[in-house]
Formats: sequence, structure tokens, C-alpha cells
Amino acid sequence: MPEPTEPTESELPVEPELPDNWGRWGDDDELGTLNLVTDAVRASAAAEVRTGRWASLAQPIAPNPMISSPFAPTTVDVSPVQHMMAHTGVAVAADWMLVTNHHAKSTHLDALAHWSRDGDVYPGRPRGEVVTPAGVTHASSASFAAGIVTRGVLLDLAHQGPLPPAYAVTSRDFEEAEERQGAEVRSGDALVLRLGWPSTPVPGTPTPGISLDAVRWMHRRGVSVCAADRGDAHPPLEPGEPSPLHGVALGRMAMPLIDAAELDDLAALCVELRRYSFLLTVAPPRIHGLTGVPVNPIATF
Amino acid sequence: MPEPTEPTESELPVEPELPDNWGRWGDDDELGTLNLVTDAVRASAAAEVRTGRWASLAQPIAPNPMISSPFAPTTVDVSPVQHMMAHTGVAVAADWMLVTNHHAKSTHLDALAHWSRDGDVYPGRPRGEVVTPAGVTHASSASFAAGIVTRGVLLDLAHQGPLPPAYAVTSRDFEEAEERQGAEVRSGDALVLRLGWPSTPVPGTPTPGISLDAVRWMHRRGVSVCAADRGDAHPPLEPGEPSPLHGVALGRMAMPLIDAAELDDLAALCVELRRYSFLLTVAPPRIHGLTGVPVNPIATF
Amino acid sequence: MPEPTEPTESELPVEPELPDNWGRWGDDDELGTLNLVTDAVRASAAAEVRTGRWASLAQPIAPNPMISSPFAPTTVDVSPVQHMMAHTGVAVAADWMLVTNHHAKSTHLDALAHWSRDGDVYPGRPRGEVVTPAGVTHASSASFAAGIVTRGVLLDLAHQGPLPPAYAVTSRDFEEAEERQGAEVRSGDALVLRLGWPSTPVPGTPTPGISLDAVRWMHRRGVSVCAADRGDAHPPLEPGEPSPLHGVALGRMAMPLIDAAELDDLAALCVELRRYSFLLTVAPPRIHGLTGVPVNPIATF
Amino acid sequence: MPEPTEPTESELPVEPELPDNWGRWGDDDELGTLNLVTDAVRASAAAEVRTGRWASLAQPIAPNPMISSPFAPTTVDVSPVQHMMAHTGVAVAADWMLVTNHHAKSTHLDALAHWSRDGDVYPGRPRGEVVTPAGVTHASSASFAAGIVTRGVLLDLAHQGPLPPAYAVTSRDFEEAEERQGAEVRSGDALVLRLGWPSTPVPGTPTPGISLDAVRWMHRRGVSVCAADRGDAHPPLEPGEPSPLHGVALGRMAMPLIDAAELDDLAALCVELRRYSFLLTVAPPRIHGLTGVPVNPIATF
Repeated sequence: MPEPTEPTESELPVEPELPDNWGRWGDDDELGTLNLVTDAVRASAAAEVRTGRWASLAQPIAPNPMISSPFAPTTVDVSPVQHMMAHTGVAVAADWMLVTNHHAKSTHLDALAHWSRDGDVYPGRPRGEVVTPAGVTHASSASFAAGIVTRGVLLDLAHQGPLPPAYAVTSRDFEEAEERQGAEVRSGDALVLRLGWPSTPVPGTPTPGISLDAVRWMHRRGVSVCAADRGDAHPPLEPGEPSPLHGVALGRMAMPLIDAAELDDLAALCVELRRYSFLLTVAPPRIHGLTGVPVNPIATF
Repeated sequence: MPEPTEPTESELPVEPELPDNWGRWGDDDELGTLNLVTDAVRASAAAEVRTGRWASLAQPIAPNPMISSPFAPTTVDVSPVQHMMAHTGVAVAADWMLVTNHHAKSTHLDALAHWSRDGDVYPGRPRGEVVTPAGVTHASSASFAAGIVTRGVLLDLAHQGPLPPAYAVTSRDFEEAEERQGAEVRSGDALVLRLGWPSTPVPGTPTPGISLDAVRWMHRRGVSVCAADRGDAHPPLEPGEPSPLHGVALGRMAMPLIDAAELDDLAALCVELRRYSFLLTVAPPRIHGLTGVPVNPIATF
Repeated sequence: MPEPTEPTESELPVEPELPDNWGRWGDDDELGTLNLVTDAVRASAAAEVRTGRWASLAQPIAPNPMISSPFAPTTVDVSPVQHMMAHTGVAVAADWMLVTNHHAKSTHLDALAHWSRDGDVYPGRPRGEVVTPAGVTHASSASFAAGIVTRGVLLDLAHQGPLPPAYAVTSRDFEEAEERQGAEVRSGDALVLRLGWPSTPVPGTPTPGISLDAVRWMHRRGVSVCAADRGDAHPPLEPGEPSPLHGVALGRMAMPLIDAAELDDLAALCVELRRYSFLLTVAPPRIHGLTGVPVNPIATF
Repeated sequence: MPEPTEPTESELPVEPELPDNWGRWGDDDELGTLNLVTDAVRASAAAEVRTGRWASLAQPIAPNPMISSPFAPTTVDVSPVQHMMAHTGVAVAADWMLVTNHHAKSTHLDALAHWSRDGDVYPGRPRGEVVTPAGVTHASSASFAAGIVTRGVLLDLAHQGPLPPAYAVTSRDFEEAEERQGAEVRSGDALVLRLGWPSTPVPGTPTPGISLDAVRWMHRRGVSVCAADRGDAHPPLEPGEPSPLHGVALGRMAMPLIDAAELDDLAALCVELRRYSFLLTVAPPRIHGLTGVPVNPIATF
């Protein structure tokens, strides 16, 4: 904990306006907060790589096989991937998959065009021109298609176990974690948040989630992208602002989100290496025009 | 060039047996040559990261929109991805995609179970038990699902332009490139090969390709994974062995392949940085049970 | 032709209001004009069946194979069906298909919920409650799922060749065809219209189409369902009312439409049998919750 | 029951050979037993149509919605149809569906190429030439694409309730039903069989099924197509011949099968009308190249 005689950043009076980056990088921008990843940030990311140890931030996906046998089971687990094994006619195996790009059982990267605000998509284009039956024409997955490479910092809020139900994560939690871990979130960094909860809803149990205060802190710090095992609370923390992370961070700050991450492996590696910062490589399949895309982010130490 | 008084490695008498790793790492192995990526290899990979500069080795994919308008065009470009924009009923955009996992217009990672040999899949399991209507049960994409992190070396065989049609790439080309570039392919490395050709066939023009001699060299050197813009020649270089890379390297050496890479960006960056070795991060979506999966490999310098 | 001293039905002054059946069969109705198919209509349909000769009103669909070979063609014809042959592991062949339900190359039946009007779906439910991400909850394909069986009448407007480009089909054309053919469209009948044009657009050529006057005639006559090789003109006949068939007949009269029919076989059979009325069986796959569904209507004589 | 002094047809000595129609209609035939549907058969079918009453023989299909909400249910019922509502950008609703063509919850028509025998497909073509990654090239769904129109007869074996578990349906059951119902199955007829069981398996309970004796009877009578609520028993009735209906009737007699029919509505209508014969219209979507296709057969009286 910091000394109590000085107010922490989060104890300062809350600014009344919501954080907003529309227009900050021009009218044609498709990168949003990824503009904060400068050469200097990438150099500091490179400096984190010293051992070659790494962890995946993605949850494993068990596809749902589209088998046609009359003796298939009568129910299946919902999966983001429907899998079809192909008849190839030769001794080579091939397949197809039907992917639901936004799904709670899939670690995925939200494109900026996933969200809209008063009928517009970032940074102010009419939604009807951007989100079309033929795909997304601006701020789609194409913006990240060559990959995102930056410094990442894990703030492990679940170091003593999962956060309590309905817990509102605030900037104070972030700053305590920085202090405890000896890590600092700097401009251009990827912020990785572990709440210790599964990405799928738990019937009857309110989940913890990210508060608006926490999102304001991300804005002040200059976070470029945020990955979390659980993001917006369900049910919402505050009726008036149901989704600080998607509605404000993605929708107004133009900060790409990595939803439904799985962070136990990363947390264990950080404990082992006594280090919470790393090179983060976010490289989804290089497919253009999507609203979101499955991704397997890799933290390298 | 090495001194001519000493024969190069490729001038040694060719061993009669095909390279073979079945059984080398036990009867339950699912990693194949990825076993060669030791901690020491990863440490040397880490040592390559100094600037934070990076390049994607994946070609961009323009999905084919599954629009239903009566006034759609009457033909479409073939694409590995069929894209469907979803009706969400709210101001959030979402979508699905139907992915052909093995496709010449998609940079993808072949699982070991993609190939089989005399009815068996690596390292000797009956194909019918491994390749099933419900998915692949052994040596599938699950083997790489947490990502592959190793040292990569680009051998740019097209530094003076695309290789000639029907050119057979041999170990001599590799060793000349090592000499020219000042790079060395070591055990556990990922080998990245640029022939300067598109991954799609060129009607009426025979493509260059990797010879069996070149594959033997990979075996001797201990390559862990191979990425190329073009691999096996079409039509085959030798009638008797139609596909050295898929039939021998993948099928017998159990070396995962990254097919249909796009390497111009990487080659330009290597020229700029005067360095052909890097950290290679291969992290496809973490989906189990597939025969292959789209991937966006990232080289970080 | 009727006697010229009496005005034909179509020469009467045009009523100013658009035809409208919302509310006519109650607030919960899902059948629309199919309510006009009474037992008496079906008995008259049955009376048409005397020989067992029949014709399909559907165009053949050549699926687009989702083959994954690197040597596939680089473009394909657009098709409403993407076809995937399955790996079954046994000597039984099976497959999947991905179907675009509304497509110009597929003869399909539009559900009433396909259209909406001022935010409502027939007969006055909020669109957001009816058209949901989980499917259509009212007036979907479920309304026709047990099949439609009624008397059908072909009016062959193309008996002397395709209609001219941009031709506006009116009630006069219908009445002349009735007179010429010795057929009469009665309440509850299915109306089958042959304009002699393909269902796909012809670049640079305006197509003929159904006028609002023709739709009013269908309303007066009590047509229950309409099938045509070409329906609404492209470009529209009148700027103010771009789609009389879909906007008025489907959207206001709640008359299901069979789009993109192929009627050459039917027309030839009518000529051979010298009869233009028949039993029409419209039985799409019995799948609920769709906005439209491929169908193979059968005319039996 | 017939008089016991005369042996029924099924009491005659069983011929040793399996019924076989390969070659009966030439080397290029794609119709199989549909060749038995002559003009005379169709005329007799037409004569059955007197009232316009009808029944569907298809079970309703509830699609599985491919919703992407994080709050989707965690399991779903297995369905032959995966449904995707499309973003159209306008007030028109459209959708796609991914269909498993052979599925126990879908009434579907098996193409002759669904089965093979010693590596060949009817009437003797190498399977590898017929069943290809690009679809089926012979005896596919294209054979029935214009629809099947013939006389149908329901034999209601479940008139007193579902058949017992593991019951072997024989020709005696058929002849007793003919006698009881006053109906006769004649050459070219469609045979509709109601066993009173659901098409989906019942865990732990052996189902009834069609015996080889019953299939021989179909061959002698000249049945052209067979529809049943349940066909081959599970587990098999006899270990040596696991599937008389699929292996012999479809595979050797080249008789198309309608699997997984739902016949309660038809049975009730037959009781009401005191008539078990009707016009049967089998008109799946007119899609070529499939191994099977969903269908909604309609019986018209």
C-alpha cells in the first residue's frame, strides 16, 4: 500500500466527462489506442524478453462436432466452433469450422467496429456505412491483422482467490496490485486483468466486473489494449452505465478488448519468474472485415 | 561461400533411407520435431529480441461475404473464409465465419494428423482411431494450442527475384543463403523459406518447390517447424516422390508446416535490420481437434 | 378478349388505398392469405388431379463445393448452397450444406416475417420481438411447415417469348391470359406467373416486373400465394413504390411469395395437356423459425 | 387375418440370394426403383386425390440458433439445422442455415450414392469417382430433384400402440396390415411404415426395426420408395446383417429411403378418412450433388 498521507490517483475527484478519444487521431483512424504503442513502448517490450518462457492467455476451445450419426448425443455443450471433418478421398485429413466470433467460451479480440454510439462507429462514421451485409468496412479486424506487439502487464487481482461476487474493480485495486507486484502500467502497455472468474456466466451468481472508475484510470494511464478473464459485470454494477468496459473503453476510448481470456497459466508463470511485465504478442488469423476474431495472445518473458 | 576445397554438407553422399522420426519421442508423442525446441533454444530466441520491430508472416484474407441480395455478383473469388454478418437486434455488430482450414489463400499450420502413412498417423496409430467424424483425437491442433515460441531464421532464396519456374530448392541453396546472410539454422529453429512465389497456383506455369535433398538437410539440422511461401512444387519435381515437404517432412519427420506464408514484409525488415534471425511466435486460435488451423506467425526482432 | 363495350376489371378506377390485410384474421394470425385456402378450394384443387403428370417449379441448384485443395479454381459461381462432403470413416457418404435462404439462384418461399412495415411485422407485432438473434418467433417458416396444398393457375405471360425489358405487368395482362388460356384465378388459388426471364439480374438490362395494379388485382381476386420467375422489377418500375410484390403483396396483404421459380417445364406441360390449372403442393423442409426457406413446388395434373 | 389354409406370401420358402437391382436398368441408371413408377402408377396415384385433405410426413425441426451472446445457454439440443440470422442493414429479415443432411431429427431422403458396396456405388461405379470432395457425381440428390410423385400406402403397424422393443417387422406384419386396412401395396407404390417410435435413439432401449424378410417382401411387391418413422433396428436385429433397410433395400435394391419420418398426423387422417392410400409428393429442395436432403413428403387424399 502507498503511504496514506498522499491521495492515490483514484482518490482524486472524478472528472465528470466520460473518457473519449473520438477525433484524437483524426477522422480516418482505425487504430484507436493502439496509436499509443510507440517505438519506445515496443523497445521496452523487447527489453522484457530474456528467458524465452511464455504463456498463452487463451482458453482452450473444444469444438462441437457436427456429426451426422443417428446415435449422436441429444444435447451438446455450446461451443464457439462447429467442426466438420472433410471427405478428402485421399489419405490426407482436412476440415472446416464455423466460428462464432464473439462467444464467452472463446478468447477473442473485439474490433472497434464491434460497438457503436448514437448510430456512429469510431471515429464518427455512420454505422450503416461501416457495418454492412458484406462485412465491416472501417475499424474491422483488418486494423490488427498484422498483429499487435507491445509490453504487457498483468495485474493479478485474484492472487488470493477469485474476487467476491458483484465486486466492483476500481483504480484502487489496480494501484494496490502495482504496488504489491512491483509493476507499473505505462502508456502504450497492454493491461491484463485477472479476476479469477470463468468467462461463462454462473447462473444465479452476480459476477464481479470492471467499474467506470477503473476505466477512467486506464484512460489516464494510456492503456493500449485490455485483456481480462472477465470484464463487464453481469448483472451490471450500476444501472445507469451497464458496461464500462465495452460501452466506454471500447466504445468511446477506442481501446480494443480481448474478451474471455484465461489467465491462470500466466499468473503462475509470473509468480515463478517474480515478474509481471512481458512482451505481449496478439496475432489473430489475418482475416479482414470482421467485428471480432479468435486470438491466442502470447506473453513472452 | 565456403571454401571449395571442402565439400558442403549437401555434397556428401545421400543416405538411402528417408528421414524418419516415428518412435523417436515415444509412442504417445504429439509434438514431433517441436521436441527439439529446448529451453536453450528459447533462450537464444529471446536473445534475438532487441528492438520490438516485428513482421507478420501471414497473407491477408479477404473473406467471401455470404450476402443474400439478388443483385450480388455472379462469381466470387474463392476464399478460405465465408463471412456472415449477424443480426444482433442491438447496436453491437457480430458475425460468423466458415473457415476452410487448409487453403492456398490462407496461411495455416498443418497438424501432424493432417498426413498419414500406410494407414497410420504419427507416431503409429491407426488412422481410423485418430481421424474420426468427431474430430482428430491425437496429434491435432491441440498440440500447438498454447503456441509455439522459438528462434526463427529466414533464408531468402528470392533476394534477387522469384525463383525460376520448376526450380528444385536444394540444401546448397540453403547453405548459400546462410553464408550470404550471415545466419545459421540450428537445432530447434523454425526455418522460414522465401521462394518469391504466390501460394496460389499459376495456371500453365510449373512452380518451384522444395526437393527431397532440402528436406534431408532440415532433418540433419534439426529444424522444428518450417514456414514457406511455397512448399511442394506443382507439378511435382520428381514423379516418384510427389511431395517432399508434406510427404516426408510432415509425414515422416513429424515436422509441423506453415503453408502459404507471405514473406515480403519479413524479408524487407530483415534487409532493413541486417539480421535474419528473430523470435518466432506461432499462436493459432486455441482450438483443439483440428487437422490444421489458420495462423498469423509473428517475427519479433 | 372480353367484349370491349364492358370495361375490364382493371379499367375500373384505381382505389386510392393500398391493399391491406393486417388485422383481417386477428391479432395472432400467422397465415395471412393462406386463410383463403378453404376446404372448398382444396376440393377444387383435388379435382384437378386426373393424370398424375407433374412439373417442378424450382430451378436446379448447383452447390458451390467447399473443397480445400490448393488447386481449386480461383473464382466460383455464386451459389445459394455451399456444400461440404463429410468424412464418415465408413463406406457411407454424408454431407453438410450452408444455405442462403433468400437468393436469386434458389427457388424459395418468403415467410411473412421476411418483411416489416414501420417497425412492425404482420399482423402488427414489434419487429424486435419477432425478428431475434435466436430466430423468428412469429409468422416464420413454421407457418407453412406442414405444407401448402391448394389449386394453382399458371398465367403464362411469356407464351410468345420473354416480356420486353422494363415491362410493367398489369391486371390487363392477367385477364388477357385468363381469356387466352381458358383459365380463371379464383379465391384461394395460387397464382403462378411466367414472365420468361431468369431470376438473376441481367447487367445493364432493366427487367420486367409486377406493377401495383397487378398486385391490387391479386388482392381483389383473393390470391393465396404467388410464385413467379421474376417478381419486382429491377430497376423499379415506379420510384415511389419500389417493390409492389414484396412491399405490398407480402408486406401488407400478408401473401407468401415464392421467389425465383423456374416455369419452363410447367408451361410446356400446360401446353401439352391444354390445361393451366392444377394441384399445387408447396412443401419446404419442415424447419421452424426461418425468414424463408428453399422449396420445390410441385404442380400435379 | 387371411384364411390359414392358404400360405401367405411370406410363408413361401425364402430365396437364398439377397434382392439385387444392380444392372436391372442399365449401367447409367440413377433412379433405381423409381423406374417402377410408371404412367399407370401415377394415374392410380392421381385417382386417390378426391378431397384435398393432406398430411405432412415430416417431423418439425427446431433449429439451433447460433447466437453469440455471452449469456447463451451452456448446452443445446442437438439439431440438424444451425441457424444464423443475418444483418441486412434494412427492414428485411434474412438468414442462413447449416444443414446436416443425414440426421435422426430430420426427415430426409437418402440418395442412392449414400451407400456403397464393395467399393462401388449403384449401379457399379467406383466410389472414388462418384463420392468426391466436390460432391456426388452420380445417383445423387439430382436424381430426385424434380420431385417424386407416386401412389403411397401407409401400413400402420402401430395402430394399437408402439411396437415392442427389439421387435422384428416381417412381411407377415405387412400382410396383416393390408388385410386389416383394406389396402394393397402394388408395384411402383411408396410404402410408408409406422412403427410408433421416435426417430431418435432411446438410451438403454433396443428399438424395433425392419427385418430382411420384410425387405425381401418390398422387393417382390415392387416398392419404389420407403418412408418410415424408424427403419433399421438399433442394436441390429441380426448380427450378420446389421441394416436390412440401408444395406439391402438402399444398397442393393437401389430403393431410395425417407428416414426419420413422423407419421402420427398421417395415421390420424387415414383413420378419419378410412383410407390408407393417397398421392405422395416427395419434393426436396432441388439441390444437386448431395448424398441426402431434407424433405417434407406430402400425402394428399
